Amino acid sequence: MIELKREGDVFVLRMDAGENRFHPDFLAAANEALTEVERAEGPKALVTTGAGKFYSNGLDLEWLGAHQEEFVPYLESVNALYARFLELPAPTVAAVNGHAFAGGAMLALAQDFAVMRTDRGYFCLPEVDLGMSFTPGMSALIQGRLTAPVAHEAMLTGRRYAAEQAREAGIVQRTADEAGVLPAAVELAASLAGKDGGTVRAIRVGLYKHVIAALRGPALPE
Amino acid sequence: MIELKREGDVFVLRMDAGENRFHPDFLAAANEALTEVERAEGPKALVTTGAGKFYSNGLDLEWLGAHQEEFVPYLESVNALYARFLELPAPTVAAVNGHAFAGGAMLALAQDFAVMRTDRGYFCLPEVDLGMSFTPGMSALIQGRLTAPVAHEAMLTGRRYAAEQAREAGIVQRTADEAGVLPAAVELAASLAGKDGGTVRAIRVGLYKHVIAALRGPALPE
Amino acid sequence: MIELKREGDVFVLRMDAGENRFHPDFLAAANEALTEVERAEGPKALVTTGAGKFYSNGLDLEWLGAHQEEFVPYLESVNALYARFLELPAPTVAAVNGHAFAGGAMLALAQDFAVMRTDRGYFCLPEVDLGMSFTPGMSALIQGRLTAPVAHEAMLTGRRYAAEQAREAGIVQRTADEAGVLPAAVELAASLAGKDGGTVRAIRVGLYKHVIAALRGPALPE
Repeated sequence: MIELKREGDVFVLRMDAGENRFHPDFLAAANEALTEVERAEGPKALVTTGAGKFYSNGLDLEWLGAHQEEFVPYLESVNALYARFLELPAPTVAAVNGHAFAGGAMLALAQDFAVMRTDRGYFCLPEVDLGMSFTPGMSALIQGRLTAPVAHEAMLTGRRYAAEQAREAGIVQRTADEAGVLPAAVELAASLAGKDGGTVRAIRVGLYKHVIAALRGPALPE
Repeated sequence: MIELKREGDVFVLRMDAGENRFHPDFLAAANEALTEVERAEGPKALVTTGAGKFYSNGLDLEWLGAHQEEFVPYLESVNALYARFLELPAPTVAAVNGHAFAGGAMLALAQDFAVMRTDRGYFCLPEVDLGMSFTPGMSALIQGRLTAPVAHEAMLTGRRYAAEQAREAGIVQRTADEAGVLPAAVELAASLAGKDGGTVRAIRVGLYKHVIAALRGPALPE
Repeated sequence: MIELKREGDVFVLRMDAGENRFHPDFLAAANEALTEVERAEGPKALVTTGAGKFYSNGLDLEWLGAHQEEFVPYLESVNALYARFLELPAPTVAAVNGHAFAGGAMLALAQDFAVMRTDRGYFCLPEVDLGMSFTPGMSALIQGRLTAPVAHEAMLTGRRYAAEQAREAGIVQRTADEAGVLPAAVELAASLAGKDGGTVRAIRVGLYKHVIAALRGPALPE
């Protein structure tokens, strides 16, 4: 479901569970991988990627439908995963190999940079069309990483951004074709791996202090 | 002064009082129109527009000069109108048919999107040249909707943005000639009218929670 | 070390101490100059510039190494200087004649606008490569003046922006060759000098209230 491999200084976390929705087991495996990266010695950076045509479609709505009583703690566990990325003592790069929707799009935003595949796949926050809202932490994350006009359009219209549109909007930083996405992300990550992890973490945590607080706060608006 | 018509799913709120300054009667009529939109059933979206060469010039300084003792409650009533737009359970589009100055420019910013007329009219925050400041809510609104460099330039220099400049700066999203502004805004609004109003409201209120709090707070800085 | 001259409505504060690092004497002289500008009557604006190939390289790490017990009050005195620029009752323009690094880059960001030299010099926040973090006030200043994607890249990668790259990123507003930087900054400042200083101050303080509070708060994260 989640595979973590180290290639030189770069850890590659590969999600390979279909749409890569956040089943509790998936979240647990992702958290374990992050712990392994945190504990690794020496220069390091993390790349995340999916498989096939999906990066990640976010919340596991099927599981959630069968466990409605766990709605709030489940959302909080997703928010906590985003917070861990923001707190990770290593540079992070999302290799967006395919669709990054909803919670999967936010997973990409929780990382330092993103490289997106040009020929297929969208970055999309479809919540408005699903009758769903965002947790305060998710709103803060999106607002903290995108410009105000882009966050507004993405959240209020559910627009699907293809790679080049996402790059122009500042949602991702680079684009590449299918074969080039992961190598480009690994290259970018490798170029950043020499930075001191503790310093990266301190700067990022300082920059997103209020985002992290919101992600670790209540999942339902007060 | 204010006319509200429904054309299919789109309500068009037309302001037709010269410079469309915010006389208390104008504000009351605008609030009534918003209430009507709020209460309407079914798919809906709202377009606002002015008439002739003015979208709106904002505060009614003449009325204010004759009612100086009402300065603070008057500012709060203007801020409350902006807050109601942010809270409206329907997508909103400003058809900026002419000058949008000061409080009128902020009225456009309080809406989801804006289409601006190319051949005439400016978006301008002239407060700095009028010896006026912004209420904390107004500052928060402008900062919440524009990028930091654009908000700074607009507020500190009083620059007049023509339509194309405003689009490049992310202040408006589309431009059209005089005859095309309202149709383009209605088309955009119609494309968004199918979204669930409660969801639109929940996402927008979550996104601008601190802006709404500032708009509903004291009009004078503490 | 710091020379203040008035040319018509424009004060030019020229830093001429090599790399223009913030020795305590340098900070004291800069504060005196700001006080003189604050007290001046009539239309006024302020331009700051360096000399040779340096605008400013920021913190005086050599002095700090010899006075480690003064680390926190020293950082707070630097933050206080930034706050004074944000509070200055006059428009401000940085003429970035050369390298603007770290605290020197933030000095430029504390001013209303910046003109940057095209043929030499970088805007750079190298803290991540120096094992240094940002004070909460510095984080707030950078975040308050740049778009979210630009602040992230600048702070997390330590990228060196040449003039044209800095202009595209919205870090500076204009560029000019070596001979043209100061004249362009003076021209821009002169065009803004007619604005009422108290109004400029009120608008800027309203816009950056939370930045100023952070700059005047603790230098170490809580």
